[in-house]
Amino acid sequence: MNAAASKPAIVAVLMERSIGIGLLGAGTVGGALVRRLVGESDAIAAKTGLTFDVRRIGVNDLERERDFEVTEGLLTDDPFEVVNYPTVALVVEVMGGKDPAGDLILAALEAGKPVVTANKELIASRGPELIAAAERAGVPLLFEAAVGGGIPIIRPLSETLAGERLDRVLGIVNGTTNYILTQMAEEGASYAAALAAAQELGYAETDPTADVSGADAAAKAAILASLAFGTWVGVEDVYAEGIEDLTAVDMSFAAEFGYVVKLVAVCERTADGVSARVHPAMIPLDHPLASIRGAMNAVFIEGVAIESLLFAGPGAGGEPTATAVLGDVIDAARETLAGAQVAPRIRFSPGDLVPFADIQTRWYVRLQVDDRPGVLAQIASGFGDAGVSIRSVWQEGVDDEAALIVVTHSAPEASQREAIASLRKIDEVIEVASVIRVLGTNP
Amino acid sequence: MNAAASKPAIVAVLMERSIGIGLLGAGTVGGALVRRLVGESDAIAAKTGLTFDVRRIGVNDLERERDFEVTEGLLTDDPFEVVNYPTVALVVEVMGGKDPAGDLILAALEAGKPVVTANKELIASRGPELIAAAERAGVPLLFEAAVGGGIPIIRPLSETLAGERLDRVLGIVNGTTNYILTQMAEEGASYAAALAAAQELGYAETDPTADVSGADAAAKAAILASLAFGTWVGVEDVYAEGIEDLTAVDMSFAAEFGYVVKLVAVCERTADGVSARVHPAMIPLDHPLASIRGAMNAVFIEGVAIESLLFAGPGAGGEPTATAVLGDVIDAARETLAGAQVAPRIRFSPGDLVPFADIQTRWYVRLQVDDRPGVLAQIASGFGDAGVSIRSVWQEGVDDEAALIVVTHSAPEASQREAIASLRKIDEVIEVASVIRVLGTNP
Repeated sequence: MNAAASKPAIVAVLMERSIGIGLLGAGTVGGALVRRLVGESDAIAAKTGLTFDVRRIGVNDLERERDFEVTEGLLTDDPFEVVNYPTVALVVEVMGGKDPAGDLILAALEAGKPVVTANKELIASRGPELIAAAERAGVPLLFEAAVGGGIPIIRPLSETLAGERLDRVLGIVNGTTNYILTQMAEEGASYAAALAAAQELGYAETDPTADVSGADAAAKAAILASLAFGTWVGVEDVYAEGIEDLTAVDMSFAAEFGYVVKLVAVCERTADGVSARVHPAMIPLDHPLASIRGAMNAVFIEGVAIESLLFAGPGAGGEPTATAVLGDVIDAARETLAGAQVAPRIRFSPGDLVPFADIQTRWYVRLQVDDRPGVLAQIASGFGDAGVSIRSVWQEGVDDEAALIVVTHSAPEASQREAIASLRKIDEVIEVASVIRVLGTNP
Repeated sequence: MNAAASKPAIVAVLMERSIGIGLLGAGTVGGALVRRLVGESDAIAAKTGLTFDVRRIGVNDLERERDFEVTEGLLTDDPFEVVNYPTVALVVEVMGGKDPAGDLILAALEAGKPVVTANKELIASRGPELIAAAERAGVPLLFEAAVGGGIPIIRPLSETLAGERLDRVLGIVNGTTNYILTQMAEEGASYAAALAAAQELGYAETDPTADVSGADAAAKAAILASLAFGTWVGVEDVYAEGIEDLTAVDMSFAAEFGYVVKLVAVCERTADGVSARVHPAMIPLDHPLASIRGAMNAVFIEGVAIESLLFAGPGAGGEPTATAVLGDVIDAARETLAGAQVAPRIRFSPGDLVPFADIQTRWYVRLQVDDRPGVLAQIASGFGDAGVSIRSVWQEGVDDEAALIVVTHSAPEASQREAIASLRKIDEVIEVASVIRVLGTNP
């Protein structure tokens, strides 16, 4: 469909000032959004001068009971009917998943309809294509809810900080894993016990893989890095390591050394280019992210002029996420009411991506060793030969075995891995029990 | 001047995509802005597709040395020349003060030129008039830098959270006083010594009145409350009490009881209406605002759906504030490029303001008393007769004088004041040494 040809009709609908919403997905976020659009309509109208009317909702199962009022004909199991419905002037996608969400959003944009989505997975993989489609159509594509749930972070990054030279964005962007790690750190719980508790409380899914593997956080890291640095970083460019191998022992060593272990999204710009990664990291206890507990999320931004900013709040949940979606809906409607082609908020320029192997970090390495003379010298050589210098060593003997903890200075990921591989070849090294990267004092 | 008539010319200028900026004021923020617009122009163009050109700068003193390059004819001491200059398409006001800034902004808006300002004092006193003028002209009036310096807070409040029912906004919005209070709390410094240190470091002006009296924070509280609740709260509606009477003794009592004293802007909505006030308050040590130290600022937002959000960062300084101004400049330019009338982002509806006398708070009261039998009973009656119930009492005798500390339950300001007045009439009460409101567990 041709955007220019369809636009006058859309503008006419918008001009009534009651804006027809087509909703794709009616789960936790979608349901909360419908209830808010109905229940808060007077308050929204008073604050913004806009009224909204949900005209079509695309769902998988027409028969399921809903937690909002359903009028005759409101629900459909054909999502393209939602997008193409004549009086739907704005499409909200909260169904999740890459397919068919991507094609639905493209169809909406091509029909000249603004789109609001909470779909981190889709934006992190097809962002530039979707943003280009929105630019061609001259309508907004907004996705504040894709990162940080109810925390306003996309708009601050892409608008308020558009003129800032950002160096680094650190995020605790997955509530499930932060809840699990908080339980492990504060209650001494094992990973399995903490995961079970999270599942009990509804903080973790029955299949927790997407959260605990770091995949969910990786999609968010890709979006944060792309917006912060203006160079596209796709989810496939993000190194992701999960929390499944963390132990209560390492959590307690971390505390002893003045750190706490968090699953962190790290987006960086250096002279060599930009990068994004997700992995467990030891964070100094006095860092603002160290105090983000339970299912909370936070994003910490470092820039030349603004020094550092912290945004913290609920990173998930139907109601907070619906707030972010609703803010975008209001913004998109307001901008589209003007009737003109909307200039894009985000542009990406080509730039270098730093391969993960070249990323500089410090490592905490816990080894089980036979406590014999000379073992420390061998281990030190293992690090030294790989070009990794040791910052501190801590040893605790139990009978003739010893726990040996080495914290390194900053070195490239590849060198650190080479050092670990060589340690594994030392006879006295019973086990490289754990390896955790250390944040803080930068390279 | 007629907005509609002047608009085509402006649009034509904007269409070149090099946007002419007229700058009012070239102090710390203005200077930083000019340096950024020049030095970062490639980065800004890459990220936003926009280029900017500073065409006229209004200054008080043409002869003063500048920390940016000044081409022939760039400076003028006639601010209206800046606003009316033909190729100035966007006006940035960072001169401060109500006059003539207000008339200059009105003139710019009436000429159909978007305006970006950092002027909290002006917005807090003439906000509705200026916003209405922007609405008539169909151009943006943005003021992200007016509150929280480099912290993005205006746009999140007025846009991302537009669909949220906010209950309370708490802010540490003055860096000077937070620096002084941090020194007092952590170093045991007296108010006078901490103020002198702040002046030494450039955190406080030679005449610190606007900061230490709470007047600066009151203007910011007015803006935060107005945006959060959608009902206009002017600076004249904000009760303001400064930090001049705080003592190191009370800081140390606060710490002993698990609190820290901060100058807090409190914006609330209750069933009775909305309110905003600024005063020193004891904050529980586990509250996120308690950890905001030194010249940092932070805003803590509570809402029905989003639960709570924290925004923290540098609240002042030329560079961070210039980042916020620059974000607004980019946003205003992007929106205006579309060429259409811009719908306003903020609307105010009538609503009730709760008088300060009716505001419910808890009080910490420190008394010097003669340590005679029956004195506590008299004091308890003083509170009881005023309808204020006591939560806890703490007494420490020194010879036959005693320090008596009373923490009350929540009661209206008027009742608390009545209680204090009655205490002053008790013979054994040597002095009501200090009175500090206590935040936390709400009414």
